[in-house]
Amino acid sequence: MQLNKDLYIIGIGPGNLSDISRRAYQVLNEVDVIVGYKKYIECIKELIGEDQQLYSSGMRKEVERVEKAVELAAEGKKVALISSGDAGVYGMAGPAFELIEKNDISITVEVIAGITAANAAAAVLGAPLMHDYAVISLSDILTPWEQIKKRLKAAAEADFITTLYNPRSSKRKTQLKEAKKIFLKHRSPDTPVGIVRSVGRDGEEIMITTLVEMPLEKVDMLTTVIIGNSNTYISDDKIITPRGYKI
Amino acid sequence: MQLNKDLYIIGIGPGNLSDISRRAYQVLNEVDVIVGYKKYIECIKELIGEDQQLYSSGMRKEVERVEKAVELAAEGKKVALISSGDAGVYGMAGPAFELIEKNDISITVEVIAGITAANAAAAVLGAPLMHDYAVISLSDILTPWEQIKKRLKAAAEADFITTLYNPRSSKRKTQLKEAKKIFLKHRSPDTPVGIVRSVGRDGEEIMITTLVEMPLEKVDMLTTVIIGNSNTYISDDKIITPRGYKI
Repeated sequence: MQLNKDLYIIGIGPGNLSDISRRAYQVLNEVDVIVGYKKYIECIKELIGEDQQLYSSGMRKEVERVEKAVELAAEGKKVALISSGDAGVYGMAGPAFELIEKNDISITVEVIAGITAANAAAAVLGAPLMHDYAVISLSDILTPWEQIKKRLKAAAEADFITTLYNPRSSKRKTQLKEAKKIFLKHRSPDTPVGIVRSVGRDGEEIMITTLVEMPLEKVDMLTTVIIGNSNTYISDDKIITPRGYKI
Repeated sequence: MQLNKDLYIIGIGPGNLSDISRRAYQVLNEVDVIVGYKKYIECIKELIGEDQQLYSSGMRKEVERVEKAVELAAEGKKVALISSGDAGVYGMAGPAFELIEKNDISITVEVIAGITAANAAAAVLGAPLMHDYAVISLSDILTPWEQIKKRLKAAAEADFITTLYNPRSSKRKTQLKEAKKIFLKHRSPDTPVGIVRSVGRDGEEIMITTLVEMPLEKVDMLTTVIIGNSNTYISDDKIITPRGYKI
């Protein structure tokens, strides 16, 4: 395969080598440098060759990694900048394009889509995401909490299936509690809720519960939460949202 | 690879053999039967072996295909039931679980996630989906139009980036026009809009425009429409939604 771009922004999916796209796998095999958060580099370490250069760093260092990737690509290296899930969903695609555009850097870029947490979590829960849905990050580090609350209220009122990203961390515990309260105002306490931790990775945990019973303390930054709509139901160990077919 | 389930419900992604997951590719190679809409079977025809049985049918035959797949799996065949994109998003996972549950059929099932149109379209547009987003199907065949309108209004008011599925067909032309009108009430006429037709397939077309200028007649059932939020902007030939990083 001839790599015809300078920078590839790649979503690696949930974090194993099976749920990655064939295109992403091939490009990751052939680039000169892979840049990413150290835990995501760890997820794909088996495919990294001895001749490939790595640049990894820790949490909150997103802008630094983007700068490094763009710099190396501008120097003539073939670079892969990785995100978990899809790089276009709260991932590295945004800051990369922002940096390139603001500094008028002339490199060619391709985004290679990946399976984002909403879809990966839905797959192990059954079929919860079968109708109109909203994706909301509960992290208020980069977004005012009032804006997030407004979106939670809108999603709850309009009966969207709702997937929560970054729902809770050791330092951010109140947001999920408040989200639950907002949903309980507009949706039945029995609304099915799926909680998936480390989807697709070692130690994956799946819990099926209801809105009123959702155990907040089971949720952390490795967790994705899916709240059903008013038609969603639980059957055996699956969450199912009917699409409307006569079955 | 040992197939340890009876039925695999597989999202093949946008419709080429590169953007499919490695897991989906491997399972599709090894099942006895592949069941799907004839156009999606066409997308993966290169990987189908001579010893594999196919069962394909046309549009609106979703329930028939689900019945066939479940029946074959119950008879002891290893079956793949395919959807384009992600089978859990307006795809075959929902009706399959509904059928299995209602008829108390005892087969084992695995859903293999795929890249849904929202993420595939976002990747070719740049980084439009970088913040909270809603996915709404404009098809009112299975959902009352009033409910869809309510969701459009909620998404527009709460400043969700919004991806429209099934936006317009030869028989369904008014919905997109009405959706545009709803968004124009709550969002600037200059809001970036990306229109992607046949994403990832031969003849892929990408158009970047604005809400007020969105040409309705360019949109059909093969098209995905992404409407930016109030911070989304167009730079060169890309749509970018800032995540909030200082860059």
